[in-house]
Amino acid sequence: MEAVEQLSHPFIEEANHEVLRRIQTARPVLVGLAPAKEVIPDMRDGLLLHGGPPLEWSEMAGPMRGAACGALVFEGIASSLEDARDLCDRGEIVFEPCHAHSAVGPMAGIISPSMPVYCVRNETFGNMAHATINEGLGKTLRFGANDEEVISRLRWMEEVLGPALTNALAKHGPIDLKNMMAAALRRGDECHNRNKSGTALFLKTLAPALARTCHDRERLARTFEFIGGNDHFFLNLSMAASKATMDAVKGVEGSTIVWTMAGNGVRYGIAVSWFGDRWFTAPPQPAVGKYFQGFSQEDACPVMGDSYISEPAGIGGFAMASAPAITSFIGGKPADAIEYTTRMYRITLSKHPDFTVPNLDYEGTPLGIDVRKVVATGILPVVNSGIAHREAGIGQIGAGIAYPPMACFEQAMEAIHEAVASKGLSQGFKQEKGGKEQMGKNECES
Amino acid sequence: MEAVEQLSHPFIEEANHEVLRRIQTARPVLVGLAPAKEVIPDMRDGLLLHGGPPLEWSEMAGPMRGAACGALVFEGIASSLEDARDLCDRGEIVFEPCHAHSAVGPMAGIISPSMPVYCVRNETFGNMAHATINEGLGKTLRFGANDEEVISRLRWMEEVLGPALTNALAKHGPIDLKNMMAAALRRGDECHNRNKSGTALFLKTLAPALARTCHDRERLARTFEFIGGNDHFFLNLSMAASKATMDAVKGVEGSTIVWTMAGNGVRYGIAVSWFGDRWFTAPPQPAVGKYFQGFSQEDACPVMGDSYISEPAGIGGFAMASAPAITSFIGGKPADAIEYTTRMYRITLSKHPDFTVPNLDYEGTPLGIDVRKVVATGILPVVNSGIAHREAGIGQIGAGIAYPPMACFEQAMEAIHEAVASKGLSQGFKQEKGGKEQMGKNECES
Repeated sequence: MEAVEQLSHPFIEEANHEVLRRIQTARPVLVGLAPAKEVIPDMRDGLLLHGGPPLEWSEMAGPMRGAACGALVFEGIASSLEDARDLCDRGEIVFEPCHAHSAVGPMAGIISPSMPVYCVRNETFGNMAHATINEGLGKTLRFGANDEEVISRLRWMEEVLGPALTNALAKHGPIDLKNMMAAALRRGDECHNRNKSGTALFLKTLAPALARTCHDRERLARTFEFIGGNDHFFLNLSMAASKATMDAVKGVEGSTIVWTMAGNGVRYGIAVSWFGDRWFTAPPQPAVGKYFQGFSQEDACPVMGDSYISEPAGIGGFAMASAPAITSFIGGKPADAIEYTTRMYRITLSKHPDFTVPNLDYEGTPLGIDVRKVVATGILPVVNSGIAHREAGIGQIGAGIAYPPMACFEQAMEAIHEAVASKGLSQGFKQEKGGKEQMGKNECES
Repeated sequence: MEAVEQLSHPFIEEANHEVLRRIQTARPVLVGLAPAKEVIPDMRDGLLLHGGPPLEWSEMAGPMRGAACGALVFEGIASSLEDARDLCDRGEIVFEPCHAHSAVGPMAGIISPSMPVYCVRNETFGNMAHATINEGLGKTLRFGANDEEVISRLRWMEEVLGPALTNALAKHGPIDLKNMMAAALRRGDECHNRNKSGTALFLKTLAPALARTCHDRERLARTFEFIGGNDHFFLNLSMAASKATMDAVKGVEGSTIVWTMAGNGVRYGIAVSWFGDRWFTAPPQPAVGKYFQGFSQEDACPVMGDSYISEPAGIGGFAMASAPAITSFIGGKPADAIEYTTRMYRITLSKHPDFTVPNLDYEGTPLGIDVRKVVATGILPVVNSGIAHREAGIGQIGAGIAYPPMACFEQAMEAIHEAVASKGLSQGFKQEKGGKEQMGKNECES
């Protein structure tokens, strides 16, 4: 290890302190569910939202193209997948990132106007965030599948599941998602790639209100089967909670904390509080993990989607010590899960006061990814990830561990140096404990 | 540590091997729910079943007396608690252990003829086991409370909850409890004193069938609220599963394995496979743990009930490494949970093939408590326990860790020596790794 030095300035430390305070005091609460066009700002016909940093239709990777075409058929805008492709090729569909519309989408992240979306309000700061309902594993729109089975499931979610959840939430009242995520962490989830306990908790919480408001017994039974049969159901709720939390820390001048990370299958990006919605992007790496039978790394699309907001918010890969059993899904050994969380303390500025890890004697999860620390130590944030097939129409083929490209952090560090210079701040340097490593980077490249 | 020697003989080792095989291949499955008088062998009017080894009414501790009187009022046999006490004082009520009727009951363990009980079948060996539905925490019959709130809850369980579960189970079909317990262990439960995930899993599994069979929406909603609102709901299911498992290993000649442990508040007993239903008893110790506000160890009744069958079956205290968060309920630190499980490998003969601990790299839980090892090492089995108030009518006042008295194991060891002698077996002795300790015993006495 070589000794490393790190930029330091009271202006930066104070800004970071403010960002941490906002994350720690956020209170994301599920207040409802409604069609996207009714609640998402500037949602409109002819617009599709997608996961990750902005990109054009012509650049899109297979799964995102597949998901976009499936959504156009679902909306009735296109009569067939071919028709949908033609519409896109002719430039008749507008694509914008979910993140630009107070929303997040897993994987391809496609949100179309009729899809029901959760409404999560950050009670502390008043901002809202949205995400679709999770469709399940395997052949699903978010992983690029778009056949009749996928489309008819989306229709059922629009016509049956969505209204059932809307009515039940109205009857039940707001659900505190921060509490629910904290409980799930104590029950073996990490709330990104393992959501079994979060899902069971959500179902348990809403079951009485569903029983009181859903008058059709068979629809009620199917609703329970759908939620209870999808161990990832809670993912989209925790994503919306993280978005509601992290949107409130954007644009704090001087803060070097990463407020989100996201991929679109072509570029991976990080965004830093100081620079608001500006993306620092680089070509993505595929995740390294376990593949479903019949698939291998050659079939994999590079990491994609908005779910990597989990780690900046203190869950997911950063909370893996809570979820040793996740290694049966993503590969590796249970001890790795502890190691991942422990390593992340070296690139973060604080710990989460509410997301605590029983396995680490109730230590808070690592919180506040500092661009300076990532660059100084060479340790990359570890993220959990689903793996989509690289072609449209196939779906999920595995799950694993991924790392964002170091180039994103190097660019962000450049921007920080420029901003420091342009503000005329005198730069101080402090010695960082430990030293520079290649650990995360090497694993990423292996 | 002094070196210790341990009785050894091929006849014993083979018998123990057979017992382990039966525990490991058991398949406890929930097949239904019905009033006790319809399904429990020899259940009849005027009979109450109780937790732990046999005892007379005149000997009973406060909470068990309270529970018995409450049950007689619930049954309509007594018009008041005073009337119930008079009936018992006059010897008009017969008391027999749950264990003698293929049943188990937590704490006081009172089962009366009208109470709905689970029917769990060991599919591998064909035997059945029963347990009541868990009432919740705090003021409940099993902890000796018996006021109008407790009795009316029992009536609701008989009239609404019981039939709802009966119909839903008939619709759903058998539920594999071994799988469900194994899943709960991967989600932070140990299935004795922490049952949050088991409960959520059970509710999730049965919710669709409940929706299809319960025609009254408000009753359905209340059923969800009751199950979802009681984090210990799953306890009685795992107890019945353990009873179904362990009853199949009783009476294997030569086996030194403990098939159950149980307390009645006056005596604590263990039972050993070789000697079937014979109890080896001694005065019990109270649990050491955390008390609810306003209560202390002076208020505690010594350990009581049949739930200590959990540990011989490989869960509970023996699976605490799965449930580090339990220490927030019973006291101690998360690291203690790992230590408890690890220590138990020294007094057991095998590991459970299905109950695995992610925190220990998916090691199976310690399985098969060997009387010889307990006596040779001085290490007592660690059990989780609820704590009842010593007086009738109050209820649960805490939860903690308890140890059975060493005297139970010393008596059992005597019986083993006698049986070995009477069979004319030539006794061999083997060297035991490690040595004799006072750890468990000291903690118990502290």
